[in-house]
Amino acid sequence: MPLERIRVVLVATSLGGNIGGCARAMKNMGLRHLVLVAPRDFPGSDATARAAGAEDVLANARVCASLEEAIADCQLVIGTSARDRRISWPRLSPDEAARRAVSASTSQEVAIVFGRERTGLTNDELDRCQALVTIPTDPEFASLNLACAVQVVAYEIYRAALDSDTSPESADDLGEPRASQGDVERFYQHLEQAMIETGFLDPRNPRLLMRRIMRLFNRVDMTVNEVNILRGILTSFQQSQKRL
Amino acid sequence: MPLERIRVVLVATSLGGNIGGCARAMKNMGLRHLVLVAPRDFPGSDATARAAGAEDVLANARVCASLEEAIADCQLVIGTSARDRRISWPRLSPDEAARRAVSASTSQEVAIVFGRERTGLTNDELDRCQALVTIPTDPEFASLNLACAVQVVAYEIYRAALDSDTSPESADDLGEPRASQGDVERFYQHLEQAMIETGFLDPRNPRLLMRRIMRLFNRVDMTVNEVNILRGILTSFQQSQKRL
Repeated sequence: MPLERIRVVLVATSLGGNIGGCARAMKNMGLRHLVLVAPRDFPGSDATARAAGAEDVLANARVCASLEEAIADCQLVIGTSARDRRISWPRLSPDEAARRAVSASTSQEVAIVFGRERTGLTNDELDRCQALVTIPTDPEFASLNLACAVQVVAYEIYRAALDSDTSPESADDLGEPRASQGDVERFYQHLEQAMIETGFLDPRNPRLLMRRIMRLFNRVDMTVNEVNILRGILTSFQQSQKRL
Repeated sequence: MPLERIRVVLVATSLGGNIGGCARAMKNMGLRHLVLVAPRDFPGSDATARAAGAEDVLANARVCASLEEAIADCQLVIGTSARDRRISWPRLSPDEAARRAVSASTSQEVAIVFGRERTGLTNDELDRCQALVTIPTDPEFASLNLACAVQVVAYEIYRAALDSDTSPESADDLGEPRASQGDVERFYQHLEQAMIETGFLDPRNPRLLMRRIMRLFNRVDMTVNEVNILRGILTSFQQSQKRL
């Protein structure tokens, strides 16, 4: 996965706990390079506690005095911003920004820059960015926790990296062979026969009930195993009737 | 935006701070309905501190004793799981789950269920879900902070809701009311009882068979009528045994 060359830059973070939360969110998504610009509370116990297994990301974090220093060797710098600004920068959605970052990182150093908890990035800092990413939020309550914002962007970066590695697999795969239509048909016949035996189905007028049942099971796309289980249940009902 | 009918259910959360963080993550993405199943540390100052503006979501949160109670009136229940399990449930990516949840929420009550910080949802709890959503993560460090996991799923739900405002409705509409999870639960109990009567199910060890059956029927998203038909069939089998 081409994530080695993507760094997360946190500018002037106030709370050490948020730095730890960001480190954890990064590591969950395969990002290891954290750069801290003038952090207020780092290193410290709050950062370590919230890292919860990502202490290595904190230990390897680089601390810089300025954003310029943090991104000096980067070819692509993407800033994050919740707000509409007076001057409009090119603005990307998180998935667009992630695809651009992952694509660029095959040959370039990439930085994703997050601002202060309350006030974000200054306009001077935004001027250092080639593009802005904005996480869509309810306009009535737009301020995300810093670690949660890093989580969303890192999640999109990880997805973009997975996409770039392989074609996506079916998410709905049960890992079992599906039943053939013939198997399903024999299950319907078995069920119909069992229902006639109990009198639930009138064989002179079976259609409407069977149609409703077929409409139900046809939606499921059953596996071979599942058809076998249902037919086993039917057989047990039939044998139970004959035994008594 | 059709998010009124989507609730977030947190099961047995240990840390009040995480509950507050989840409330904030939800409100950022337009979700207001929080249900807490047996929380360990709620209400409390940690939850309030981390809510950071989403105290209204905490104040309106419903506290339940069990997951069954929390989802009894829901027609679609989606569980979250980081792990591979012995039996594979249908598994959705966060964007797929979000589209399904938003589409269903135009006419149904929907629950997204998150488990304990360390251990997630139990298999019994997963059995109550029609589908599972898994957030893709680096396999070397897969455990997300709970609020961050809620943030990712809520972000995808908000995006899906923004998309759905401009896209056509699902073609999968059967034009019939869907069964509630309580109706489906009563069908399972009825089927389990009938299978015990015939000896097909060993009541000392019912779990694996019932889990496979629940996995099958949970995929269908049954209507009220369909549940009634299946229970009618079961009753006819039971009466037929008693008559003979």
